[in-house]
Amino acid sequence: MFVDLNADVGESFGAWTLGHDEALFPFLSSANVACGFHAGDPVTMHATLKLARQFGVGVGAHPGFPDRVGFGRRLLEAAPDEVYADVLYQVSALAGMAASMGVPLRHVKAHGALSTRGWTHAPTAEAIAQAVRDVHPALPLVVLPATLLETEARRLGVPVVLETFPERAYLRDGRLAPRSMPGSSIHDPQEAARRAVTMVKEGRVQALDGGFFEFEVDTLCIHGDNPNAVEIARAVRHALEAEGIEIRAFAAPHLSSPEVPS
Amino acid sequence: MFVDLNADVGESFGAWTLGHDEALFPFLSSANVACGFHAGDPVTMHATLKLARQFGVGVGAHPGFPDRVGFGRRLLEAAPDEVYADVLYQVSALAGMAASMGVPLRHVKAHGALSTRGWTHAPTAEAIAQAVRDVHPALPLVVLPATLLETEARRLGVPVVLETFPERAYLRDGRLAPRSMPGSSIHDPQEAARRAVTMVKEGRVQALDGGFFEFEVDTLCIHGDNPNAVEIARAVRHALEAEGIEIRAFAAPHLSSPEVPS
Amino acid sequence: MFVDLNADVGESFGAWTLGHDEALFPFLSSANVACGFHAGDPVTMHATLKLARQFGVGVGAHPGFPDRVGFGRRLLEAAPDEVYADVLYQVSALAGMAASMGVPLRHVKAHGALSTRGWTHAPTAEAIAQAVRDVHPALPLVVLPATLLETEARRLGVPVVLETFPERAYLRDGRLAPRSMPGSSIHDPQEAARRAVTMVKEGRVQALDGGFFEFEVDTLCIHGDNPNAVEIARAVRHALEAEGIEIRAFAAPHLSSPEVPS
Amino acid sequence: MFVDLNADVGESFGAWTLGHDEALFPFLSSANVACGFHAGDPVTMHATLKLARQFGVGVGAHPGFPDRVGFGRRLLEAAPDEVYADVLYQVSALAGMAASMGVPLRHVKAHGALSTRGWTHAPTAEAIAQAVRDVHPALPLVVLPATLLETEARRLGVPVVLETFPERAYLRDGRLAPRSMPGSSIHDPQEAARRAVTMVKEGRVQALDGGFFEFEVDTLCIHGDNPNAVEIARAVRHALEAEGIEIRAFAAPHLSSPEVPS
Repeated sequence: MFVDLNADVGESFGAWTLGHDEALFPFLSSANVACGFHAGDPVTMHATLKLARQFGVGVGAHPGFPDRVGFGRRLLEAAPDEVYADVLYQVSALAGMAASMGVPLRHVKAHGALSTRGWTHAPTAEAIAQAVRDVHPALPLVVLPATLLETEARRLGVPVVLETFPERAYLRDGRLAPRSMPGSSIHDPQEAARRAVTMVKEGRVQALDGGFFEFEVDTLCIHGDNPNAVEIARAVRHALEAEGIEIRAFAAPHLSSPEVPS
Repeated sequence: MFVDLNADVGESFGAWTLGHDEALFPFLSSANVACGFHAGDPVTMHATLKLARQFGVGVGAHPGFPDRVGFGRRLLEAAPDEVYADVLYQVSALAGMAASMGVPLRHVKAHGALSTRGWTHAPTAEAIAQAVRDVHPALPLVVLPATLLETEARRLGVPVVLETFPERAYLRDGRLAPRSMPGSSIHDPQEAARRAVTMVKEGRVQALDGGFFEFEVDTLCIHGDNPNAVEIARAVRHALEAEGIEIRAFAAPHLSSPEVPS
Repeated sequence: MFVDLNADVGESFGAWTLGHDEALFPFLSSANVACGFHAGDPVTMHATLKLARQFGVGVGAHPGFPDRVGFGRRLLEAAPDEVYADVLYQVSALAGMAASMGVPLRHVKAHGALSTRGWTHAPTAEAIAQAVRDVHPALPLVVLPATLLETEARRLGVPVVLETFPERAYLRDGRLAPRSMPGSSIHDPQEAARRAVTMVKEGRVQALDGGFFEFEVDTLCIHGDNPNAVEIARAVRHALEAEGIEIRAFAAPHLSSPEVPS
Repeated sequence: MFVDLNADVGESFGAWTLGHDEALFPFLSSANVACGFHAGDPVTMHATLKLARQFGVGVGAHPGFPDRVGFGRRLLEAAPDEVYADVLYQVSALAGMAASMGVPLRHVKAHGALSTRGWTHAPTAEAIAQAVRDVHPALPLVVLPATLLETEARRLGVPVVLETFPERAYLRDGRLAPRSMPGSSIHDPQEAARRAVTMVKEGRVQALDGGFFEFEVDTLCIHGDNPNAVEIARAVRHALEAEGIEIRAFAAPHLSSPEVPS
């Protein structure tokens, strides 16, 4: 039994630091690297890729809306051809930087409002999936199950990686509980760890509105921008390993590069 | 006998149009595509790559300083590691977009103040050349002869493509005549065409301060942002062809892509 | 009888030119100057203010969403406090530059998606109106009649200037006809001119879905980014003047400044 | 005896926090607020102005080069008309926001590379000073003594406020010791405090290359981005007060605002 553990990294920008990448990396098997639109910049990306290589963590591109001051968290009604080109650009930039360091690109995960827009807006979901496929037909896209992003990715033949959030409560229908609902966020590392174990072993989570939501899970996401992100990552990883669940990056084909044998 | 004819393209941004790419492409054998820092944006880059593919023009990346409002024309004292990462990012973004369309990246040419900074500042020149080499060791860099950019590229083993400007006057020592000198710019298409022919056939140009500057020339650059850029490109191309000089992209190894065997 | 004639100006950015400000100014009585977020930059703003002063045209601030590559035309779900601060910042920047040149600020008009968001989203409308009031309680806001932007401005005591578009078709309920409807845009200068006259003299416009929409009109807006914007402005102005309608800026108190007597 | 104590504040950006403004404000009499080009954004500026008002700290505008990823610390060879318009825009934006809150603008201080460029490049110094004068002829500019920025400001009749750095070593000729020289930076709060007292009481500082540099001092600058900035500010303030030196904002005329009579 195994599962992947991922977090968003490389979210600093110029003189501004965000997150605790170096402390977080030891607990991760995959990392989603910001690509310069909502966060990150070329120097930060390069340093983050070095860290990922050093810790042997699988690297993914984490494209977002071109809204730096809003950190990519605000809906932007970009047209599908804009979403397509923006994702293609960002993933290509990161993939090329990674390839230059002998680091293969293993996945793509959309950030913030770009992702949530893709959950419910089919043209956005299609544009994201199409861009990922056009970078490489075997490049996987990390998706929230039961969203249009999953639907469109599958329809276009893009390999999907199913993601679950141990720190977020769910509703019976699989949607994340709105942050306005009491209990929607789990702050206690031990509680997050217990949920992670149940998610992986039982393939389900107790819903905030009663009953259970069942799902497959390929990767668990730790929110890197929580004040206690490192503590949660440690607790989740230790709890999973204590149950005999191996933490490893999902199997993934990757971009060909001269330096890295496919 | 043959020579390459290049121009900067893809310099529009969002709702703002610059240049006459579609009218210019028929006369070019190579095009330097802006990469989103000083000009260009993902949608513009995608459209420009489509045009280049349609006209069979060789595609190069044209990275610049991150100074959009200044169009990359103002010196920015970026540190070498910043120049390196910025160039690597921009070239990677364009290369990936091009690869997704089956278009190989054939060269890199630095834009504006990034280029002129590289002419005289060795650490900048080295950072540019290093980034190009790290994208692909066989990727050529277009350089002005007799500059530190040529020196550093050769030192690092980066293939160089020597560039000459039929619309610019030279000094005896090979430097471009400062724009403040009378006669430093050639505006007459026929005069530019005559100079182009002499440059290619005789490997030299009459210097503004007397005598001649001798050089090798692999590619001639047409300024795409001149009001009469298309007229000049037409005149230069026709004059060269009338002399039996073939216009074709310089031989260049390229990035691997599914469509183009390495 | 009189009416104001306004257009958006100062929409160039750095090396990129947009619009035909110098040709358009002679026909206008008011101009909405982009403030650097969706278009414009400090040098462009300064040059535009000089032109406005030279032609005696009333100056307004034209704030937009911070989305330069999208020209402020894409909905951005900014929070009300973000909208408030963004508008306050942009209006202040333009007002200060204008004051330094002895040019009073006469109005504010929201641009693109910021404006249309304010038509239907009360918190955005309130944030815009609040920012305008906090710059100066007597500073007028140009609004489309029968929108939440008008409602909120009136509720907060912000003076409103009612705007109508001779180049756009209306529906019976006062909304602009969607651009997807045939006949929604008027391209013929003479037709636009006839509509302008009817709008001012009769206070109504024939609706695309039958009947008429009646309104008050303080200002007519000419789209400055049309290819034939100058021709339309000329036709509209001449037709109005031929009917004895004076073109003059709406009466407006303005920001106090040492240079300009109130 | 009295002196002003200033620091740069409002240097956060969007989701990214920088500095310890709230902890620093109690020790300051003046604060230089970033204006959105190198740091700061409208929401941050608004929050910073609220804090300044709450603590009764004098507010100044802190304009910089439009180089956010470089934090305005990299030389950008902007033309004088660009520097002029950029400074005018930024100061106006902050002044207008401050005025809307009843907070008068008391000074301007150029940031980072814009400031150091003004020390040695007369056209840049003149452009900065001219912009400040055009905002208001009585608005003071904080300058490093014995620089072209002081010279040009005085020549244009701009009131100058002379600034000294207790945490930086000086050379005999008044220049700051380059950061590459051992001892160029003072990290010990008590040492910084002792230097501050000497600077104010004796009007001189021991030079790193021997002897003393004598100067007038109107304001002492605390670097807000040091890890121990708050500790240093506290030590400097307490040491000055222990010597009977009052900490208060320099006398300054200010921009007219409804709340504050000129």
